[in-house]
Amino acid sequence: MSSFFARHLAVVGMGLMGGSLALALREKAQTISGVDMSAEARDYALAHHIVDQATDDLRAGVAEADVVLLAAPVKVIISMIHGRLGAYLRSNTLVVDIGSTKADICEAMRELPIGIQAIGGHPMTGKESPGIDHSDANLYRDRPFVLCPSRRTTPAARDRALALVDALGAVPIEMDAARHDRVVAAISHLPYLLSAALVATVSKEGEKDDAVWGLAAGGFRDMSRLAAQDLSMMGDILSTNTRAVATLLAQFRMQLAMMEAALIAQENGTLTDMLRPVRQARLAWAHRQEKIKRGS
Amino acid sequence: MSSFFARHLAVVGMGLMGGSLALALREKAQTISGVDMSAEARDYALAHHIVDQATDDLRAGVAEADVVLLAAPVKVIISMIHGRLGAYLRSNTLVVDIGSTKADICEAMRELPIGIQAIGGHPMTGKESPGIDHSDANLYRDRPFVLCPSRRTTPAARDRALALVDALGAVPIEMDAARHDRVVAAISHLPYLLSAALVATVSKEGEKDDAVWGLAAGGFRDMSRLAAQDLSMMGDILSTNTRAVATLLAQFRMQLAMMEAALIAQENGTLTDMLRPVRQARLAWAHRQEKIKRGS
Repeated sequence: MSSFFARHLAVVGMGLMGGSLALALREKAQTISGVDMSAEARDYALAHHIVDQATDDLRAGVAEADVVLLAAPVKVIISMIHGRLGAYLRSNTLVVDIGSTKADICEAMRELPIGIQAIGGHPMTGKESPGIDHSDANLYRDRPFVLCPSRRTTPAARDRALALVDALGAVPIEMDAARHDRVVAAISHLPYLLSAALVATVSKEGEKDDAVWGLAAGGFRDMSRLAAQDLSMMGDILSTNTRAVATLLAQFRMQLAMMEAALIAQENGTLTDMLRPVRQARLAWAHRQEKIKRGS
Repeated sequence: MSSFFARHLAVVGMGLMGGSLALALREKAQTISGVDMSAEARDYALAHHIVDQATDDLRAGVAEADVVLLAAPVKVIISMIHGRLGAYLRSNTLVVDIGSTKADICEAMRELPIGIQAIGGHPMTGKESPGIDHSDANLYRDRPFVLCPSRRTTPAARDRALALVDALGAVPIEMDAARHDRVVAAISHLPYLLSAALVATVSKEGEKDDAVWGLAAGGFRDMSRLAAQDLSMMGDILSTNTRAVATLLAQFRMQLAMMEAALIAQENGTLTDMLRPVRQARLAWAHRQEKIKRGS
């Protein structure tokens, strides 16, 4: 693999993810420009030398770029692609987005001019605390980075995107956008909805009995954390992955109904027979994660 | 409140919870005996001076005690009370259990001889790693410790139990057993079933596409942790709290169905209107927890 280098890297969206991309690629780009509506984010990025230039003008930010990273919420990415982005870019520019759903974005990439090299991306990483002030050059290190081809993904675009992922220290995983969206519906979007519906249920109980809040401990903390995620981000994600999420919700409902039936019938043996492989699957996954972490 | 002192403290069940009780009360008891079927647990407890005496014989363990703590799974506690425990105890002995559901246990306590002082307890604490070798004298410190009266709870029993909770450094919360069971159904047993049904759903997906396991990250980790809990413990809990869990499951189903309906209809505004108060409730709870932690 040739190593990644950008003459001019443009990062569109200077939050935690965009700031961390810029930091991680600091030595791999001659110039880095950042585009964001927030003057605060731009000032922070300039003051901390995360970018060399900062602007709120998309055209000015990307005009000179040979690599453009779109680090914005899903619907903002889609509307940029549907909008004027293509017209602002030089021919042969590589465009990689890092939106959390991929089918709609990769579909939109068809509209980019021929000659633009575009590929969908989704790094499986993040932090509790958003904002460019939490940027971290190691945010992507050793984490999976999904790449999904679009109609604008030439073999050269793919090679360059793989080199970019390598430069981030991330682990590239290539799959088509529909498959990606189904996988993240299971491991990310369904869990979010369950977390939200749990908090809604507990809130109703809490209206009747405040002890609910007083006694809630570690189990509730873990299960409710996702419910506090950013609403507009989650709204974008859910509305661009509705079909896969609905499919997973139906499957979840079936699994829960089977457990509930055994519970209500007081068939403890049956219930335990359902819960045992579930416990094993969780332990096996945790074990696998541990092995990856230890690098073995 | 008079301060807690036991001439002879018996801890029945020497796992993480029982071992931690013994460690926390080390200076408040003249003699501590431990009862457990496991020779390994007994040897560990003796070798580490967690108890002064250890036996696998319930009668021998509790015969001299003036305070008995039952730190066993719910159904073991119930069968001890239904069995010979009452006959083994001296008159006026205080019995406190720490089972995770309270109605069935407090109901069983009626069967103890008059003269035995018994009260239900549930400390809201724990650790990932079970076993007496993970015992921690501070496990109960600053954590809620629910006390539920039974027919054998005299005012003196209540006072002594409150002194015990104080000696542990825990925060006593008094409520009746039915209310307790409803609260923990919401914040603990429902979350467990959701976690298990989520892992079951993801496992089905994982059979078709191994990428599910490879891409699962922090959100899935939190949401699946409870699914790895001890099966026999959870079986006892669910089977002694079936009605409250079923009620909460029905309420959860309704909340999830409302979110799903808005999602499928692509009514993003409606969905966000549902998710906003949920997010606020989670943030408010986390804020409250932070304040308690800081002791303000």
